[in-house]
Amino acid sequence: MGEHTVSSFDEDLDHIDRLIRDMGDLAGSMVSSSTMALLASDNVAAQRVISDDTIMDAKQRELDDRAITLIAKRQPMAQDLRSVVGAIRMAADLERIGDLAKNIDKRVAELNSEFRPQKLIRGVEHMAALVLSQLKQVLDSYAGRNLPSALDVWKRDKEVDAMCTSLFRELLTYMMEDPRNITFCIHLMFSAKNIERMGDHATNIAETVHYMIEGRPIMDERPKGDTTRLAAGAGG
Amino acid sequence: MGEHTVSSFDEDLDHIDRLIRDMGDLAGSMVSSSTMALLASDNVAAQRVISDDTIMDAKQRELDDRAITLIAKRQPMAQDLRSVVGAIRMAADLERIGDLAKNIDKRVAELNSEFRPQKLIRGVEHMAALVLSQLKQVLDSYAGRNLPSALDVWKRDKEVDAMCTSLFRELLTYMMEDPRNITFCIHLMFSAKNIERMGDHATNIAETVHYMIEGRPIMDERPKGDTTRLAAGAGG
Repeated sequence: MGEHTVSSFDEDLDHIDRLIRDMGDLAGSMVSSSTMALLASDNVAAQRVISDDTIMDAKQRELDDRAITLIAKRQPMAQDLRSVVGAIRMAADLERIGDLAKNIDKRVAELNSEFRPQKLIRGVEHMAALVLSQLKQVLDSYAGRNLPSALDVWKRDKEVDAMCTSLFRELLTYMMEDPRNITFCIHLMFSAKNIERMGDHATNIAETVHYMIEGRPIMDERPKGDTTRLAAGAGG
Repeated sequence: MGEHTVSSFDEDLDHIDRLIRDMGDLAGSMVSSSTMALLASDNVAAQRVISDDTIMDAKQRELDDRAITLIAKRQPMAQDLRSVVGAIRMAADLERIGDLAKNIDKRVAELNSEFRPQKLIRGVEHMAALVLSQLKQVLDSYAGRNLPSALDVWKRDKEVDAMCTSLFRELLTYMMEDPRNITFCIHLMFSAKNIERMGDHATNIAETVHYMIEGRPIMDERPKGDTTRLAAGAGG
């Protein structure tokens, strides 16, 4: 940390906020690039996402270091402390979103089959678009300390789950129909599941924004879509 | 926090260590219970794991609160600070292992099909047994600050991946053979993937033990098994 030590708490926190914004931008770009790479069988784009993940990891480490130093140096209380702890939590969720994008990319090389029904492709695209919009909204709600907007993201968690459920049903039909579709469909299932989990992390961030502003966790059970049996289990 | 405020740093850290031990014990019991519930179609055991997950989440929150308070109150430096930060990271990994066990349990109700080849069941059992032994070893290495033992867990990460790969191949054969096996096999694939990811978290903990003792991250790339295409992507 080359910072001059007389910087104020607010300056330190601004720096952490900037790191969160960078990580949020990177996460968003990794989500859309990985989905595009998957659906267009674009191996070059996939490689780029994999290297973006290294940048993401480094940013998270920098944020963690700064946050811990800030806590030790300033001993913030109440809302100030929650802001720093919240930033650590958000960074962990953003880093996980990057990991999930990287996992999708690892499947890109395998997905260049001739069998690629438009309906399935569009299903994945829609899921990714929804997750991206939730991610953008929750990061904006953090930047603007906008609690209603964060709660809106939190309540909409079940939308992505429902889309995943419907896609899984579709995929199952194709698998039953012709064993030659099975491999392709399994890759798409795991990819869809990864996108669903990105949505869970956007929801976690909404919970963190709530905690930062209100100083207590959201107590209600997180809403869940009527998931099929197959898609069962967020993150499963 | 009802602690008397004159407690020493070491006493505070001991308390955090006890929480890690509790969480580690709980994680181990959740891993074995969820696997047993899955393989024996035991819905009651599955429900218990789901409620254990609530306890796990509460323990993680308590640990986080204590760790942050400790940093603010004592401003620990160097190895002391790393011990506290390391505990926060380990708690996050243990909590994720609990989540993954819960995700497996959500599939238990769906897995009571008549089709359950012994070879597949044994494959899952072996993966779970290996992950449990790695978890136990890495937690012991933390308790005893035993770096070589932690590094051993870190190096063995690829063993679980290789088992998952081989199980996926087997599952694919059954799916190709008869479409009626597909649903069962997909549940088992996602369950196996969850177990593989538990192994990744045990490896993360090994990295944290290295960081706590050595004060720097393990720089080498984490070893990876020769994963099949299907199983591609740790956590994918």
